Amino acid sequence: MTRFALTVEFDGAPFFGLQRQADGPSVQQCIEEAAHAVTGETVTLHSAGRTDSGVHALAMRCHLDIEKPFEPFRLLQALNAKLRPDPVAIIGCEIKPDDWHARFSCIGRSYEYRIRNRRAPLTLEKGRAWHIARPLDADAMHEAAQALVGNHDFTTFRSAHCQSASPVKTLDRLDVSREGDAIIIRAAARSFLHHQVRSMVGCLSLVGQGTWGIDQLAHALEAKDRAALGLNAPPEGLYFVKATYPQED
Amino acid sequence: MTRFALTVEFDGAPFFGLQRQADGPSVQQCIEEAAHAVTGETVTLHSAGRTDSGVHALAMRCHLDIEKPFEPFRLLQALNAKLRPDPVAIIGCEIKPDDWHARFSCIGRSYEYRIRNRRAPLTLEKGRAWHIARPLDADAMHEAAQALVGNHDFTTFRSAHCQSASPVKTLDRLDVSREGDAIIIRAAARSFLHHQVRSMVGCLSLVGQGTWGIDQLAHALEAKDRAALGLNAPPEGLYFVKATYPQED
Repeated sequence: MTRFALTVEFDGAPFFGLQRQADGPSVQQCIEEAAHAVTGETVTLHSAGRTDSGVHALAMRCHLDIEKPFEPFRLLQALNAKLRPDPVAIIGCEIKPDDWHARFSCIGRSYEYRIRNRRAPLTLEKGRAWHIARPLDADAMHEAAQALVGNHDFTTFRSAHCQSASPVKTLDRLDVSREGDAIIIRAAARSFLHHQVRSMVGCLSLVGQGTWGIDQLAHALEAKDRAALGLNAPPEGLYFVKATYPQED
Repeated sequence: MTRFALTVEFDGAPFFGLQRQADGPSVQQCIEEAAHAVTGETVTLHSAGRTDSGVHALAMRCHLDIEKPFEPFRLLQALNAKLRPDPVAIIGCEIKPDDWHARFSCIGRSYEYRIRNRRAPLTLEKGRAWHIARPLDADAMHEAAQALVGNHDFTTFRSAHCQSASPVKTLDRLDVSREGDAIIIRAAARSFLHHQVRSMVGCLSLVGQGTWGIDQLAHALEAKDRAALGLNAPPEGLYFVKATYPQED
């Protein structure tokens, strides 16, 4: 048995999320079926994060165990050949020790959320960003976001379906910057609650439009109440960008 | 009669090009039909460049004449409302003097060509870049490209369907740079021949793979013969990025 770590890029649009679902296609199902076609083995994919329906990944980290010997590069090529034409690509593949776990060994997760802030509808970036026509003040969004950085009870920003044992998490980074008519929000933490990034971004968009004052985000956090949530941002702007492991980088 | 200059962004994938075609949908047809729906007038769209089927634009410049008075911002909003759900967006609209012409007043055109250079197939950038799996040497490509800069007979890089009176053009810029696993080729000239950018990029890809030596691009240029063309790059990597006019910028 060999443990292979995969780095996976995918377009989330056609999927019901990364994790296997009873009611629709998932990235996990695609990769497990490709692995079965390549190896003849029934494998289970484990991943650093679970992404919602429509959320994208630039570099999700996953692992699977395979009995047959494979050179990592050959496995990568064979999986990609079987994954076509689904918009899922294995962009890295390496052998890891048996105690390395894509989810449990992961010590950091980073997301980017992409907003296009302009009057005109999106063309090339349709399904790749959240389109907001009203002008956003990115500086005010960044200032407000800093109230969420640190160790807090994030109940306000947690989905009712969240399976985490505790709503207390440490948010390491929540940066908002404008790049032309794009606004990029970068979030990093050891782990996130279900819907946490989209919930934080939704509230930041209200601050950016002036609907919420800069202090209102801190008040929503302190409320520890899902009813204090302003807005949950749509999935198409969200990208899983990095999983960090000890002794990497 | 008022002349309106439009700045247009579009995803070229579903279109048979910018210009009206007898056999399929075009960007011109979409905008003319939207303008008719808004104004009740039959208008003709003129554009800085003609793009092939599948080629994208980030900021194509066009103009049309309208009899009814319109505030530019209202016209922009009304056109965008009628253009939905086609992937065409009016991102700028301004009134110009009657002698301003999107095509004939244009003194500079810029294109970008995007290559993703990696083993894995594309997911999020599918249809937005040319996927080349074999490693490319961007420095060699840039060096070879400089032989094309200047005033030359570009017959080798000209489509058989090109309607330009002369194959002699002045290429102001042809820069190749690597950004991670992306290779970006930036081309600027007063005007280009039909297929010129894609023909130049196709040959540069052969230099990048080592199939052609650095000097071979100069030899192909000197041949002044379409048969000396190495390869015509596919349309999906090409973006029209800028049209320049006197007294702008």
